[in-house]
Amino acid sequence: MRERLRRQLEFIVEIDKMKSVYRQTLVMDKSRAETDAEHSWHFAMAAMVLREYAAEDGVDLFRVLKMALVHDLVEIYAGDTFAYDTKGYTDKPQRERAAADRLFAVLPRDQAKEYRSLWEEFDAMETPDARYATAIDRLIPLISNANTDGHTWVMHDIALPQVYERMRPVEKALPELWDYVEDVMREARSKNFIKENNH
Amino acid sequence: MRERLRRQLEFIVEIDKMKSVYRQTLVMDKSRAETDAEHSWHFAMAAMVLREYAAEDGVDLFRVLKMALVHDLVEIYAGDTFAYDTKGYTDKPQRERAAADRLFAVLPRDQAKEYRSLWEEFDAMETPDARYATAIDRLIPLISNANTDGHTWVMHDIALPQVYERMRPVEKALPELWDYVEDVMREARSKNFIKENNH
Repeated sequence: MRERLRRQLEFIVEIDKMKSVYRQTLVMDKSRAETDAEHSWHFAMAAMVLREYAAEDGVDLFRVLKMALVHDLVEIYAGDTFAYDTKGYTDKPQRERAAADRLFAVLPRDQAKEYRSLWEEFDAMETPDARYATAIDRLIPLISNANTDGHTWVMHDIALPQVYERMRPVEKALPELWDYVEDVMREARSKNFIKENNH
Repeated sequence: MRERLRRQLEFIVEIDKMKSVYRQTLVMDKSRAETDAEHSWHFAMAAMVLREYAAEDGVDLFRVLKMALVHDLVEIYAGDTFAYDTKGYTDKPQRERAAADRLFAVLPRDQAKEYRSLWEEFDAMETPDARYATAIDRLIPLISNANTDGHTWVMHDIALPQVYERMRPVEKALPELWDYVEDVMREARSKNFIKENNH
């Protein structure tokens, strides 16, 4: 077999591990935590469905779908860092860069470069595609929490200002969804799934 | 909230059920069966990685990714029909059409039409995009079996001619991968993970 194809098949096998990286978010039927592979699929689907609400011009859905598919690959080695885990976030960039070095090295150089740069673009949030993608990636766990009695908010004793901060990219990139986001937060607060503040 | 957005959000919630449709194929670490959501993500990734091997001209990866993302949605209501389940296959078209009627009706009409027609195109295997997508969809479970001691082949007592028949779309749409496919089948046969024939 040609070396190029051998590497590509090895990569397809390696990324199966995305089905064993569990997130804090529950599957909405509450049967178990969802996996990174499941989340990446859901993210891509939501990006398709909500494309018309992107506030910025020129969002390229094809690039956003590719971003969604690859955006969590580094978690195969770096693990999932929970959104509100400030301690985990201190060394997240180093852990994820090391993971990217290791994972993408499996691929032929041109594909390694393409996927890595999609991931870096997503992470930097400095292009319209990345800002739209980030907004979707932030929106999805809120929808999950809205359907699982605020599961991750309750579990980690999260307060309203933290959720607002986390949802800021949605307000900017998907302004027409902001009313929905605030409704969800208001209802979760009223049921005490979110604390009023951190004090 | 506008009715259109309400429907779109309802759809995003409804399709979370793809994380609870279990396939026969194992996650490669053998911890459990994989879900339709995980499979759809893996299919989309493999379609990205192997695009250069598409035998036909003009395969549009953007459309193929969308096909991969939606191709199993109907299984939320119709269930997963195992590839070699000839009995399950007799009423599969009716079950899946009824499921599509129900699921896509949640969406605004234009999006319902787009996703349904992507699914129907995939299913009909009559366009270059659909033939490439089908080849990837057939290849992935073979890669899984190659890495899980032929799990579904052993479980269902599958014979070589059945696997050949199932892999035919790979031979046509991804001819450069055919040597790999035959190697996997040969090795699985030598380990008795696949029977010689059905008699």
